[in-house]
Amino acid sequence: MALISPSRRLRRTPFSEGVEAAGVSAYTVYNHMLLPTVFASVEEDYRHLKSAVQVWDVACERQVEVRGPDAGKLVQMLTPRDLRGMLPGQCYYVPMVDETGGMLNDPVAVKLAEDRWWISIADSDLLFWVKGIAHGYRLDVLIDEPDVSPLAVQGPKSDELMARVFGDGVRDLRFFRFGFFDFQGRSMVVARSGYSKQGGFEIYVEGADIGMPLWTALMEAGRDLDVRAGCPNGIERVEGGLLSYGNDMTRDNTPHEAGLGRFCNTATAIGCIGRDALLRVAKEGPVKQVRAIEIGSTALPRCDRPWRLLAGVKQVGQVTSAAQSPDFGCGVGIGMVRMTHWDAGTELIVETQDGAFPARVRETFWI
Amino acid sequence: MALISPSRRLRRTPFSEGVEAAGVSAYTVYNHMLLPTVFASVEEDYRHLKSAVQVWDVACERQVEVRGPDAGKLVQMLTPRDLRGMLPGQCYYVPMVDETGGMLNDPVAVKLAEDRWWISIADSDLLFWVKGIAHGYRLDVLIDEPDVSPLAVQGPKSDELMARVFGDGVRDLRFFRFGFFDFQGRSMVVARSGYSKQGGFEIYVEGADIGMPLWTALMEAGRDLDVRAGCPNGIERVEGGLLSYGNDMTRDNTPHEAGLGRFCNTATAIGCIGRDALLRVAKEGPVKQVRAIEIGSTALPRCDRPWRLLAGVKQVGQVTSAAQSPDFGCGVGIGMVRMTHWDAGTELIVETQDGAFPARVRETFWI
Repeated sequence: MALISPSRRLRRTPFSEGVEAAGVSAYTVYNHMLLPTVFASVEEDYRHLKSAVQVWDVACERQVEVRGPDAGKLVQMLTPRDLRGMLPGQCYYVPMVDETGGMLNDPVAVKLAEDRWWISIADSDLLFWVKGIAHGYRLDVLIDEPDVSPLAVQGPKSDELMARVFGDGVRDLRFFRFGFFDFQGRSMVVARSGYSKQGGFEIYVEGADIGMPLWTALMEAGRDLDVRAGCPNGIERVEGGLLSYGNDMTRDNTPHEAGLGRFCNTATAIGCIGRDALLRVAKEGPVKQVRAIEIGSTALPRCDRPWRLLAGVKQVGQVTSAAQSPDFGCGVGIGMVRMTHWDAGTELIVETQDGAFPARVRETFWI
Repeated sequence: MALISPSRRLRRTPFSEGVEAAGVSAYTVYNHMLLPTVFASVEEDYRHLKSAVQVWDVACERQVEVRGPDAGKLVQMLTPRDLRGMLPGQCYYVPMVDETGGMLNDPVAVKLAEDRWWISIADSDLLFWVKGIAHGYRLDVLIDEPDVSPLAVQGPKSDELMARVFGDGVRDLRFFRFGFFDFQGRSMVVARSGYSKQGGFEIYVEGADIGMPLWTALMEAGRDLDVRAGCPNGIERVEGGLLSYGNDMTRDNTPHEAGLGRFCNTATAIGCIGRDALLRVAKEGPVKQVRAIEIGSTALPRCDRPWRLLAGVKQVGQVTSAAQSPDFGCGVGIGMVRMTHWDAGTELIVETQDGAFPARVRETFWI
C-alpha cells in the first residue's frame, strides 16, 4: 500500500483536526478534498458502524449553490427527475446528465427555497457544468461553492446522539427531509440522510469556524454511546447497494444503466437537457444494468480496477466495487451486467488481479 | 502519514504496472487518476532528475478533445490568450477562465489541425465547462476525453534517450512544438515540454494497449543512462516556479494574480468569455500576485494547507507550495502576496503548522 502525498490541492476540511486526532489511517480524494476511508480497520469500522454511532467528515460532499429567479428552472435542466412537486424542506436524489444522457454526477438536491438550492455533489466538478449551462443560456442565477461542509452522524444510535446535541426535534425528521436546528446559536440544515444503511443524519455545517466545536460536542455527548470517528465503509455500502459515482457508474452510463430509472421522469421532466437522448432508453430499457454480485470468495483483493465478468470466455459485464463481507460470509460486489446475463441466479466468473472467483447475479443487495 | 485507499474511481493508468514494479511509495490524485509523487524519496528523486533521465507516468494530464468546424472558435472562447497566430504543430500554455475571469484550469492547448485540438488539462474537470459552453452556445463541435495518456521523459539525458527510441528527429523539436513520431508502427504526438526545468519531452500515448510496450522500451534503451521511473518533483518544481492549479491558484484567482498576465492578450482575444471581467485587471494590474518566497528554514513540514504570510501581525499573503531545497540550502516557496509587500527583498514571517519561519520575497524563482 502506498502513502498519500499531502498538498493544498487535496484540501483539508473543517474537521481534519478531529479526524487526525482520532487516528485516521487512510484517505481517498473526493472533490479535491480529503475523505477518510479507514480508522481502526475496514472490518472493525464496519462492526462499530452497525452497532453504535459514528461521526463522519464528509465535507467533500461539496455544495453547488444556485440562487436567483432562474434557480428552479436551471436545476430542472440538469436532471431527468421531475422536480415540479418538490417543496422547500425536501431533499431529492437527482441523477444529473449531459445532452447525451451520460451521467455527470448523482447528487442530492436540497431545496432551501424556491430561489435557493444546494446541490450536494458526488465526485466530479459539477459546478463547471452548471456554470457553463447557466452562462450559455444566459440564466439569471448566481452559482458558487459556499463554505458548507457536511458532517454525517450514522449508525443505530444516531437519533439518540443527535437529540442530545440538537434537541428531540431531530427525531421527528422523516427520511430525506431536513429542518433548521440550532447549535451554539447557529442555525444549521440537518437532514435525515447519509451514505450508509444504518440510519442517521447529515448536518450541513455553514462556516468552517464552527466545524470543530460541533465535532467536539458530538464526541463528548456520545461518550457513553461509544461514538467514534468513522467514514463511509467499503463493505457496508456495497452490502447496501449504495452506488458510487466514478466507481459504479461514469459519464459513459445513463441513469437507467445505473438502475436509477425510478428517479427519471423522462416524459414529464420538461426542460431537462438530456431528455431527448434518454427518451428511447426510458421506453425500451437499457441493455446493461447495475446488479448485486455475490462472489464465492473467502478473501478478496482491493477492487482498484474494473473486474471482468465472464460467461465462459465471453465478457458480459464488470464488477466495479467489491469487498469481503464478514456478516454474509461471501464477497459482495456491485457490477454492470449485460441483459443476456443479468437475471438473478445467473452463474458467472469474476476475474480479479489475484485470480478468478465464481460469481452469481442476485435479485437484491444484502441490506 | 496516511495511506491512499485504492478504488476504481482513482483510475489506474496504462503505465501503472511499470510504476508499481519500479516501487512507487506515494501517490496523489489528479483528474480522478493516480499520479505518483515519490519513488525512493523526494530528495533522492530530485538528485536523480537533475543528473540523469526519468520516465514519468503523467497519464493524469487528461485531454479534452475538441473536434469540428467550431473547434477554434470554442477554444478561443475559453482563454484570454490570443490564438489567432497559432499554427498546427504548436502547443500554447493557455489560462482558462470563467465569465468572472476566475481560473478554471491552466492547460496546454495542442493544435493538431484547424478543426482538432487537445486541451491537456491540470486538475479540474474542464471537460464539464467546455461541454456546457458548447451546448449553451449551440456550437458545432464534438467534445470528449480520448484514450490518450501522456508519458513524460525529463532530465538532462532526455534527448539521448528519446533519440534512441524515436530517432534523431526528436532532437530538432523546438520548445513547445510537437511532431509525429513512430513507435512500433504507431504514430505518436511528441512535444518538447514537461513539468520540470531539466528539459525533456511529453509523449501523447494514444491507446492504452501501447503504454507498457513504450514504457519498457524506454527503460531498456536507457539502462546505461541510469533511466528510472520518476514523477513531478515537489522540490524541483517549486525551485523552477512551475505553478500548480489547485495549489498555487484556484478559481478565486485571475490569471494576472497567478503571474500569467503575459499569456493574456485581453485586448485582442475577441470572443473570450472572461474578457470583459479581465479588461480592468489587465489595465490596472492585480492587487496581489504570485511570488517566489525564500524561507529561512533547515527543514519544513509538508505544505498541506495555505501558510499565512505576515508583516508584523497583519496577513499580507499566503504560501501555497513549499519544500526544503538541498541545492539552495533554504526553504523554497510559491506564495501570493499583496502589492504592499510584494517587492523583492521584503522580509515577512511565514506561519506553518510546525511554527513560524522568516521569509523573504524574491525577484525570480531559483531555476
